[in-house]
Amino acid sequence: MASTGAYRNVAEAALRGAGSIALSHFRKPLAVEDKGEGAFDPVTEADRAIERHLRDRLGAAFPDHGLIGEEFPDERGEAAAVWLMDPIDGTRAFMSGMPLWGLLLALVENGWPRLGWVYQPYMDELFFGDGERSELLGRGGRQGLAAAGTKRLGDAVVYSTDPGMFATPAERAAYERIAAHCRLARFGGDCYAYCMLAAGHVDLVVESSLAPYDILPLLPIVEGAGGVVTDWAGNAPLAGGRVVAAATPALHAEALHALGAEAP
Amino acid sequence: MASTGAYRNVAEAALRGAGSIALSHFRKPLAVEDKGEGAFDPVTEADRAIERHLRDRLGAAFPDHGLIGEEFPDERGEAAAVWLMDPIDGTRAFMSGMPLWGLLLALVENGWPRLGWVYQPYMDELFFGDGERSELLGRGGRQGLAAAGTKRLGDAVVYSTDPGMFATPAERAAYERIAAHCRLARFGGDCYAYCMLAAGHVDLVVESSLAPYDILPLLPIVEGAGGVVTDWAGNAPLAGGRVVAAATPALHAEALHALGAEAP
Repeated sequence: MASTGAYRNVAEAALRGAGSIALSHFRKPLAVEDKGEGAFDPVTEADRAIERHLRDRLGAAFPDHGLIGEEFPDERGEAAAVWLMDPIDGTRAFMSGMPLWGLLLALVENGWPRLGWVYQPYMDELFFGDGERSELLGRGGRQGLAAAGTKRLGDAVVYSTDPGMFATPAERAAYERIAAHCRLARFGGDCYAYCMLAAGHVDLVVESSLAPYDILPLLPIVEGAGGVVTDWAGNAPLAGGRVVAAATPALHAEALHALGAEAP
Repeated sequence: MASTGAYRNVAEAALRGAGSIALSHFRKPLAVEDKGEGAFDPVTEADRAIERHLRDRLGAAFPDHGLIGEEFPDERGEAAAVWLMDPIDGTRAFMSGMPLWGLLLALVENGWPRLGWVYQPYMDELFFGDGERSELLGRGGRQGLAAAGTKRLGDAVVYSTDPGMFATPAERAAYERIAAHCRLARFGGDCYAYCMLAAGHVDLVVESSLAPYDILPLLPIVEGAGGVVTDWAGNAPLAGGRVVAAATPALHAEALHALGAEAP
């Protein structure tokens, strides 16, 4: 296995290149397809071009590694080391001109996301974590990230991307219980809400209906900043689905309790 | 009366200075007060320092003009020309580290917002409109703004800051009717959603519980880009309250119809 530094050099150069592609499509007229059946799930040229760029760069540097992403079939998906990517997390924000989307990338080793990145090219913010420390490379240089010390729901700011992500009335009721107990509950954010949790500005993120590539890249960033990320049952959210991320173990425990009391 | 250019020079220098103050507080630990009774309405040192800066600069340049803002008592509020300001529109986004907040400023002449500005200092984006044309001064220089040509709810992307802003079940039901008919409905955005409407990326904004300083600065920007802004009854939203902004007159008419069918 290469060193973390070698992985970072390749991954971050690939993300910055892919970010330039993203910006060339951002706030431009988009060709939006509907890949769902009835559901609105935009897929853009940008999505495909970004993922193509990431796959080409990572595949060339690490030919034995797997490549799994949203837009193309798996390559070497059973390899011990797999690059998992979501070319634009927050496509709906992207198509609305809002800058709260990001390019997500994880290096998954034997099923565990060891390294994770979020790159937001419009603001040139690159978030990185390895599960033990996290940092933001941005306009202010390199800045370590630390989640807040918030321990109680009553003191917490909770984010969730959209009420529509809660797929059942029971899920929605569980979210509403959390929101009702928090100091402030807001929608919007996609991956960016987890980054702000790692940075200490958001205390809790509660979501559902996530794909693995939506959450695995965020896990090493949130955990590296001292936060906790699990599914609603308290297990590692390796399959996506229902996710709760919290700034502290105590807050996480309170959130799980509130979710569990109403979850199906 | 001074020329638009003279107003712009003073106003935009004042906004950029105030934006630096905002950034010095952004993503820093905040002293948040609760000025509501039970409601969560953060007021920060940043809010006060920004408005103080704007008042000082505008008051010095235009001593006969009125000054009205969120944080301090009116000064010469009955003057023919009044500067109306909201130091941080989107304080909840601001305190969550999210960049979708802005400094709002309008020059109101005889009750009508003739010039309007939104400044987002983290992204260094200054939106300006005079009701006839609108522009964005940003990293790409000066760029004219034009709303989209979307004419049908079924093709529209609708934004609203938060479901909690709909104060009654009837208001909420009216919003839900709109959202159900749109191609995409999202929460979040505050002033930024109106800016993205002016820029052609969002088609509709439907909100309630706005103060005059929340909406009057946005009116010349949206109208200058070809959009339409009224209250839910189709009148100029000079008192705030319920607001609907649309990219085209046809879309606005469809939205009013949908809102009116359910509004109390």
